Amino acid sequence: MNDVIRAMRAHRSVRAYTDEPIPHEAVVAAVEAGQAAATSSAVQAYCVIRVTDRQHRSRLAELTGPQEKVAVAPEFFIICGDSRRHRLLAERAGERYEQKLEAFLVSVIDATLCAQNMVLAFESMGYGTCYIGGLRNHLAEVDRLLGLPHGVYPLYGLCVGRPAQDPGLRPRLPIGGVLFQDAYPQDDDLLESVAAYDAVYEQYLRERGATNPGGWSAAMAGKFASVTRPDIADYYRSKGAVLD
Amino acid sequence: MNDVIRAMRAHRSVRAYTDEPIPHEAVVAAVEAGQAAATSSAVQAYCVIRVTDRQHRSRLAELTGPQEKVAVAPEFFIICGDSRRHRLLAERAGERYEQKLEAFLVSVIDATLCAQNMVLAFESMGYGTCYIGGLRNHLAEVDRLLGLPHGVYPLYGLCVGRPAQDPGLRPRLPIGGVLFQDAYPQDDDLLESVAAYDAVYEQYLRERGATNPGGWSAAMAGKFASVTRPDIADYYRSKGAVLD
Repeated sequence: MNDVIRAMRAHRSVRAYTDEPIPHEAVVAAVEAGQAAATSSAVQAYCVIRVTDRQHRSRLAELTGPQEKVAVAPEFFIICGDSRRHRLLAERAGERYEQKLEAFLVSVIDATLCAQNMVLAFESMGYGTCYIGGLRNHLAEVDRLLGLPHGVYPLYGLCVGRPAQDPGLRPRLPIGGVLFQDAYPQDDDLLESVAAYDAVYEQYLRERGATNPGGWSAAMAGKFASVTRPDIADYYRSKGAVLD
Repeated sequence: MNDVIRAMRAHRSVRAYTDEPIPHEAVVAAVEAGQAAATSSAVQAYCVIRVTDRQHRSRLAELTGPQEKVAVAPEFFIICGDSRRHRLLAERAGERYEQKLEAFLVSVIDATLCAQNMVLAFESMGYGTCYIGGLRNHLAEVDRLLGLPHGVYPLYGLCVGRPAQDPGLRPRLPIGGVLFQDAYPQDDDLLESVAAYDAVYEQYLRERGATNPGGWSAAMAGKFASVTRPDIADYYRSKGAVLD
C-alpha cells in the first residue's frame, strides 16, 4: 500500500479540533490541490467560500444543526456550485445561458471532485475534516447570510482543524456489496452483502458507547422513511438551477 | 509539498493507454480507497460497475461519443448513484422509501467522493484515468445494456490504464477566482480573474496544436449557449429519483 492510498484509508470524520490556527499557505495548498482535480470540459463550475466572520460562523452553527464545531473549527468552508462566471461570460458575448439538469449535475460533480481533494490535502498535512451536509437544512438563510448572487448555491460545508479526538474508522459495506462486474446483482445477493455488514456496523457503534444500537439495515430503513430536506429543490431553482 | 498533494497536482486526464492489464488487486485497492471516503450518514448511496464484457464495451464506446478509449482501456468503470439497498431495506422493514431531491443529491456527492479517491488511488499506482461524462449522452441505452434495476442510475464512466501519452497539465482558474473570503466577489472582480486566465488557457491550447483557439471565456460562452443533454432528468426520474 503506498502513501496516497494509506492516507485515504486513514480517513475518519473529525468533529473536535484544537485551537491551533491553520496557516494561510496550508489553505492555499489545499484549495489548489482541489482545483487540480478533473473538471468537466474545464468548466470549473464551483467556488469555495472561506468563512472567517465570527458572527456568521455562530449563525451557521445554528443553521446547520446546531453544530458547535461549525462555529469553533479553525477553518470552515462552504463548497458551492457556481454558474455565475458562465452566465456573465455568456451575457458579455451576447449569448444565452440556457441549461437544464445537466449543468446542475456537473456543478455538483465538479465541486465534489475539488472538495475531496481538499479534504485529502488537509488530512495529508495532519488536519482533520468533517463535511457538513447540515448546511442544506436552511439553504435560503445561509444564502442570505453570505449574500450569494444568482447562479451560486451552497452544496455543503467543510470543517477543518487539528484533531482533538480520534473517532476511529467507521466500517464500510464489504467491497462485494459495492463493486460489481458487468451486471447489478440480484436482490438476495445484494441483501446478503448487507447482512454481513450489519453485525460489523453494530459492533462499531457499541464500541463507541451506544446501547442496543441496531445495524446498518435498521438505520437505513428508519432514515429514508421520512423525507429529508424537502425544500432544497425550490432553493436551487431560485438560484437559476434547472432541475428538469 | 507532501506526496499526497504532489500526486493530486500531477493530475491530468489520460486518454490513451498501453495494453498492460491492471491486476485485480489494484482494482480492489482503488475501490476500497474509494469506499474509505466520507459518506453522508453512512448511506453509501453508490455502486461501481466494472465492465469487462467486450461487446458491452464496444457499444458503450459508441454511446459515449464515440470514444474509442471506452472500448480499449484496460479497465472501464461505471459510477452509479444507488438507492436500491435503501429501498429493499425499507421494504423489508415495512417502511416507505420516501425521498426528494436531497437523496439524489447525496447519491451524486457520495458517488463522487468515492470516484475521486479511486482516481487518486489509481494515479498513485502509476495509472492514468479519464472521467467519461459522455456516459450521460444516452443514459437509457446504457441502462438497458447493463440491465440496471430501479433505484440504480449511472452518473459517469471512468477509463483507467497505464498511460501511453502525456497530455500535460491543463491550467486552472487562478485561486483568486475560486477561493473567496466571507463574501462572493463583485462581477467586475470575478471577470478580472477570468481575464488573466484566458491568455494562459489559450496558450495551453496553442501548445497542443490548436490554431486560433480562443480563451476560456469564449469556450464557456459558446458551450452554455445550447442546452446540453436535455433529457437526463427524464431518465433519472424513471429510475425513481425525485428531482423536486
